[in-house]
Amino acid sequence: MDLQEPSRFPDRAHCVQADRADPFGALVDDFDLPEGVIYLDGNSLGALPRSVPPRIEEVTRREWGEGLIRSWNDAGWIDLPRRVGAKIASLIGAQADEVIVADSTSVNVYKLLSAALAIRQDRSIVLTDSGNFPTDLYIAQGLLRQLGPSKQLLTVDRRDIVEAINDQVAVVMLTQVDYRSGEKFDLAAVSARAHRAGALVLWDLAHSAGAFQVDLGAAQADFAVGCGYKYLNGGPGAPAFAYVARRHHDRLDQPLSGWLGHAEPFAFESDYRPASGVNRLMCGSPAVLSMSALDAALAVFERAEPRGGMAGLEAKVQRLTELFIDRFESRCAGSGLRVISPRNPNRRGNQVSIAASDPEHGYALMQALIAAGVIGDFRAPDILRFGFAPLYLRHVDVWDAVETLARLIDERVWDEPRWRQRKAVT
Amino acid sequence: MDLQEPSRFPDRAHCVQADRADPFGALVDDFDLPEGVIYLDGNSLGALPRSVPPRIEEVTRREWGEGLIRSWNDAGWIDLPRRVGAKIASLIGAQADEVIVADSTSVNVYKLLSAALAIRQDRSIVLTDSGNFPTDLYIAQGLLRQLGPSKQLLTVDRRDIVEAINDQVAVVMLTQVDYRSGEKFDLAAVSARAHRAGALVLWDLAHSAGAFQVDLGAAQADFAVGCGYKYLNGGPGAPAFAYVARRHHDRLDQPLSGWLGHAEPFAFESDYRPASGVNRLMCGSPAVLSMSALDAALAVFERAEPRGGMAGLEAKVQRLTELFIDRFESRCAGSGLRVISPRNPNRRGNQVSIAASDPEHGYALMQALIAAGVIGDFRAPDILRFGFAPLYLRHVDVWDAVETLARLIDERVWDEPRWRQRKAVT
Repeated sequence: MDLQEPSRFPDRAHCVQADRADPFGALVDDFDLPEGVIYLDGNSLGALPRSVPPRIEEVTRREWGEGLIRSWNDAGWIDLPRRVGAKIASLIGAQADEVIVADSTSVNVYKLLSAALAIRQDRSIVLTDSGNFPTDLYIAQGLLRQLGPSKQLLTVDRRDIVEAINDQVAVVMLTQVDYRSGEKFDLAAVSARAHRAGALVLWDLAHSAGAFQVDLGAAQADFAVGCGYKYLNGGPGAPAFAYVARRHHDRLDQPLSGWLGHAEPFAFESDYRPASGVNRLMCGSPAVLSMSALDAALAVFERAEPRGGMAGLEAKVQRLTELFIDRFESRCAGSGLRVISPRNPNRRGNQVSIAASDPEHGYALMQALIAAGVIGDFRAPDILRFGFAPLYLRHVDVWDAVETLARLIDERVWDEPRWRQRKAVT
Repeated sequence: MDLQEPSRFPDRAHCVQADRADPFGALVDDFDLPEGVIYLDGNSLGALPRSVPPRIEEVTRREWGEGLIRSWNDAGWIDLPRRVGAKIASLIGAQADEVIVADSTSVNVYKLLSAALAIRQDRSIVLTDSGNFPTDLYIAQGLLRQLGPSKQLLTVDRRDIVEAINDQVAVVMLTQVDYRSGEKFDLAAVSARAHRAGALVLWDLAHSAGAFQVDLGAAQADFAVGCGYKYLNGGPGAPAFAYVARRHHDRLDQPLSGWLGHAEPFAFESDYRPASGVNRLMCGSPAVLSMSALDAALAVFERAEPRGGMAGLEAKVQRLTELFIDRFESRCAGSGLRVISPRNPNRRGNQVSIAASDPEHGYALMQALIAAGVIGDFRAPDILRFGFAPLYLRHVDVWDAVETLARLIDERVWDEPRWRQRKAVT
């Protein structure tokens, strides 16, 4: 069987065979997945790596309980943001000293958008995609309102972004993978286009880091943020990361100038003096428990490296998503549901999104699907979203997920009122 | 023995007796303290409550591992910031809906200082104490630099704060307990003074919350922030809290407008619409593991409530600090070390600070003391700092700590080079 022919899975047995041949297949056992669940929501919250619980126990009982305050030195807590940042750097084509782990993605967008605007202070426009993830839009709105009318946020349709980059644009702020459709920007091409116009680029890698190959260095990207709890599997609300290209380090200036971003936090000086490079992006004390979970979770990427690393994982996920789309289209034709993700796998993140002609049907179908053990999520107004985490998903999972989906569609489960009840988090 | 006569501990046996009579005595067993350690650094990092490890295990293995994304609803993760905020509210004289847990203290100072300045936009000055904890100063510097020359930071000596409040001051920003000396501002009196001048007050309760009685409501305090990892025992880098008096909720406006502070985060709207009240202080996703540790840690305060609550804990800590000072002055006279904390227990937080005539001696003495099992910390340039957490400290601990201190002074341990080696975190 040629693994390079992704649509060639005539039956489930071929999926079993593909899983046996998968160099990453053994890594499924590095995750503690519940019985009877096919997890297609690793793009919202990554699964639990088995390396995490013992590390958290160790950090809690030994480092905190026994070590107490001494563990800031003895257990190296003070270096966690740099140490974990360096591990993430290796997954996104960055240098170890270009990435730091701190705060949330939202807070890091605020810091880096401020920093980028400070560097390009001669220009007035922040350009972004009108369908960007809401927190990126809201943070930009909050910052620009604070900065006053000299700066403006320009939002255009995703398709018009490249055209809209001109010599008034200070910063192009984009999420590489659209959270609704899964469509992927060409990071290198858009960065190059921005640079030709003299603009800086701030990438949100929420659905990119740990998902597929990212090479910030080759793209000469300026700034990036990303999420610890999606494809990096750091656990619910895990700290986020921030990247700044080394060439901007000396001019890096951000307003959340907390004590851990000071050149000498324990000198307790009266005036802020920034630490070197990305260290100045730290603000308050790191959430050690949550950051240690993220640190432990990254071990599986080290184990993935000799098996093909991010390049191999990207190839695997392209097969999985192709398989999902093929099976969906053969099994669910005429259902009123349609794939809205790009068909070109190079333009698609690790995600397949399906739009429902009736949003209420779509919501109900996803609730029924989750109850049946196939976990995706729903994104208003009408999207069923399926994420494919290549570290712990098998070809058979994809096959079986579509079978369940097809069955629920055949049963018209959206007619059952219990699946229509809205939950707080969708 | 009269517990109201704190200085009457002629010998160790009286301490043992006081511990037996202590209504909070049994709560020591709620903490997992290492053998052979007397922990006088709960003001830097609270000890590990025994309620925390099983909760963290549950959150990691069951809620994250088995529940996966469903736990945002099913385990109530989405409500954690409010739920934990309500518990902290009960310890600081606030209403349940006036406190939220989010981000770090530093980030929350930024939000609330912005918010306070937005409310008093007719005024230009942020007044603070030149000895305020550095991160408060640095954050104010970062914010004011961003806001431009129309706003100014005025720092004056702690003793001159009240005098400096005038009708140009927009916000008085103070940490209630001075991190160096342990001196305590009268929260009600200073708040009243600020209000008479038309200014708002932002209190940093880092060394107050969970330490002694705080009544933000009675003081009509406007804004407050505080730390989860000191006297609240939430673990290293635990999330912080933010308080806003209900009367300011409608006008509350802060620039870190992330998606979880939106009125309907899961409607994925393009424009930010603030959630109600303090909910709009949320920004990105909460660090669930770290926040759950804090949540579990607060259980011990519920157990303290029928034993006398914060009033009883405050009385206990006054006895402990008096005992420490009395013993220090009788055992360590002529050592070149002197108590610099206020002698009036009502003007002193849960802390006794001792200044060394030679800073190098002071640093070395603290390192030797830590190695001998009595853990305090050192604050540049010359302060040995001892914190007293009334939930897990006994009178005998205080007695024994001073005995060890006196012995090390007698031995002139600062002459040993090994104690002079500086560590990253002091």
